[in-house]
Amino acid sequence: MTTPRRLILLTDGYGDDHTAKTAINLIRYKREEVVAVLDRRGVGRTSRELLGLGDVPVVGSIAEAPGANTLVIGIAPPGGKIPPPWRAVVLEAIHRGLNIVSGLHDLLRDDAEFVQAARQRGVELVDVRMNDEHDVANRKGIREGCLRIQTVGNDCSLGKMVTSVEVVEGLKRAGVDAKFVATGQTGILIEGDGIPIDRVISDFVNGAAEKLVLANQHHEVIVIEGQGSLFHPRYSCVTFGLLHGAIPDGLILCYEMGRKTIYGMPEFPLPPLEQVRAFYEASANIMHPCRSIGIAVNTSKFSEDEALAECERVSKEMGLPVCDVIRHGPEPLVEAVLKLKRKLGK
Amino acid sequence: MTTPRRLILLTDGYGDDHTAKTAINLIRYKREEVVAVLDRRGVGRTSRELLGLGDVPVVGSIAEAPGANTLVIGIAPPGGKIPPPWRAVVLEAIHRGLNIVSGLHDLLRDDAEFVQAARQRGVELVDVRMNDEHDVANRKGIREGCLRIQTVGNDCSLGKMVTSVEVVEGLKRAGVDAKFVATGQTGILIEGDGIPIDRVISDFVNGAAEKLVLANQHHEVIVIEGQGSLFHPRYSCVTFGLLHGAIPDGLILCYEMGRKTIYGMPEFPLPPLEQVRAFYEASANIMHPCRSIGIAVNTSKFSEDEALAECERVSKEMGLPVCDVIRHGPEPLVEAVLKLKRKLGK
Repeated sequence: MTTPRRLILLTDGYGDDHTAKTAINLIRYKREEVVAVLDRRGVGRTSRELLGLGDVPVVGSIAEAPGANTLVIGIAPPGGKIPPPWRAVVLEAIHRGLNIVSGLHDLLRDDAEFVQAARQRGVELVDVRMNDEHDVANRKGIREGCLRIQTVGNDCSLGKMVTSVEVVEGLKRAGVDAKFVATGQTGILIEGDGIPIDRVISDFVNGAAEKLVLANQHHEVIVIEGQGSLFHPRYSCVTFGLLHGAIPDGLILCYEMGRKTIYGMPEFPLPPLEQVRAFYEASANIMHPCRSIGIAVNTSKFSEDEALAECERVSKEMGLPVCDVIRHGPEPLVEAVLKLKRKLGK
Repeated sequence: MTTPRRLILLTDGYGDDHTAKTAINLIRYKREEVVAVLDRRGVGRTSRELLGLGDVPVVGSIAEAPGANTLVIGIAPPGGKIPPPWRAVVLEAIHRGLNIVSGLHDLLRDDAEFVQAARQRGVELVDVRMNDEHDVANRKGIREGCLRIQTVGNDCSLGKMVTSVEVVEGLKRAGVDAKFVATGQTGILIEGDGIPIDRVISDFVNGAAEKLVLANQHHEVIVIEGQGSLFHPRYSCVTFGLLHGAIPDGLILCYEMGRKTIYGMPEFPLPPLEQVRAFYEASANIMHPCRSIGIAVNTSKFSEDEALAECERVSKEMGLPVCDVIRHGPEPLVEAVLKLKRKLGK
């Protein structure tokens, strides 16, 4: 796709803040490319009313967004399957000449009907999660002068990608040559590069994470987007391999204020933050010396006063800087990164 | 393949005890199916002289084993790629009408030359590592009456599969309805079922492991073959996801006597066994109550006296039964499984 992307984001019926995170974060970080959100529940309103941010018009059909040239599947459901009612929407978009971008596990290229329609109409099917990673980690050629920071969480879908992006932007404002290293479909769509680590064959996850380090270590600081959680019954495999392949020097712990149970599995309570920190550090230290440097809390469901009280309380309990990067800005975490950089002489 | 398999095992030039583990364990557990080993270094000798066990004749070409109907790629190299000089051997086998069985990551079915030759000759290409696992774990329908035991190790290639098979055989001799749950290519070739977990997409590893539990939990005891090691820079992703998806009640720790460094990465020292035990238990307990019940040591490079001294020393230090299942039989570990079964009332 060499012409500028003009995106219509499909969330139809799935506009909650976790499932629709692809759409939400494209609006947050690629607003200039987004033409409309397609969601019949919000026609005539804006993305702020439907998804909580931005002034993107919400439309009920592709015909209402004639400027769009690309339809983006705007959700990330567990297991990554396309909702059956969306097949007709995708086919209509193809027939109208739009390229399709999907980050789902179910690949567009494996769907005979989509492939045939796209070929006939001459449009592109882009599977962001597609990869052909087949290399094991080798732990050769690591440039220790590059500071490696990784965001990790007590759960999935709570802001690790946003934290990574905001900390990198803050580092750049402070004059540091920093790079956001994307490991998930939304991050890759925003940054333009990365590896969709949760779709890599398990034997090659550590190797793919190491490859991301090797490809980006010419920067002063890299912030690697964490995935899933070591405490998630579904996704802990991904998290552990990414942590071991990326060999971070420092961790930023992420959590959502008020969340009590594992995302999508309410029968599993979340462990205390002290336990989360200790187990991440023990896991990372198997491969490389690593410590927690700060905490990013997503306070979006609470008032300003409640959010500030939470940050203060957790900072005291954990002995680390705490902030909500969206609400308060990432500066305390940026400071923590710079402090570690000085300490390690990197 | 409905006719009985008559196997010729290809190890040509790769007959060390770790890399050739597929061949070695097919000789150990499927001797009745094995016709010959193809390895030009050992022509005219037996598998015992070349690989350390069995009375299988070693031949230098396929023509010397006219009874074979299936060529097995008998090695498991890091990264799972076929050695380039073997392409001609595989093609010759196809032309002679043999089916090909491979457990490598590089799939036979993705190789246009192999596929075309096999189609012309009417033989089968069997990729044991092929899978289409696409389900996340759900933690529904687990039968807690089934005791789940998992073998884990401080490294890869040291006897987790052999330990699993031997403990299951010992349990069966003790009258227990036990099942070996295979998770690697060699185990699958021996047992006839299982999932090649290290080739599952990382998002679905925990789900695939859970599926193995659900499929086998009608047995009294299942022994799940562990993979890799939580301490291996390359494969720890696989190990962690398998551990979290299989939710074992008990662990059997496996190590090789005398091994000091990570397999294939001599710059990484192996951690002390106490640390290995503690971190496996901490990792498993995130998902389900779990404890170590015994230790399997591979003493194959040492004398009988040295082996016994090692078992005694480690048993004292770790407070667990220790044995070499090949040298001494698995009875101490079988006893430990039965003790846990009684303790948990399963």
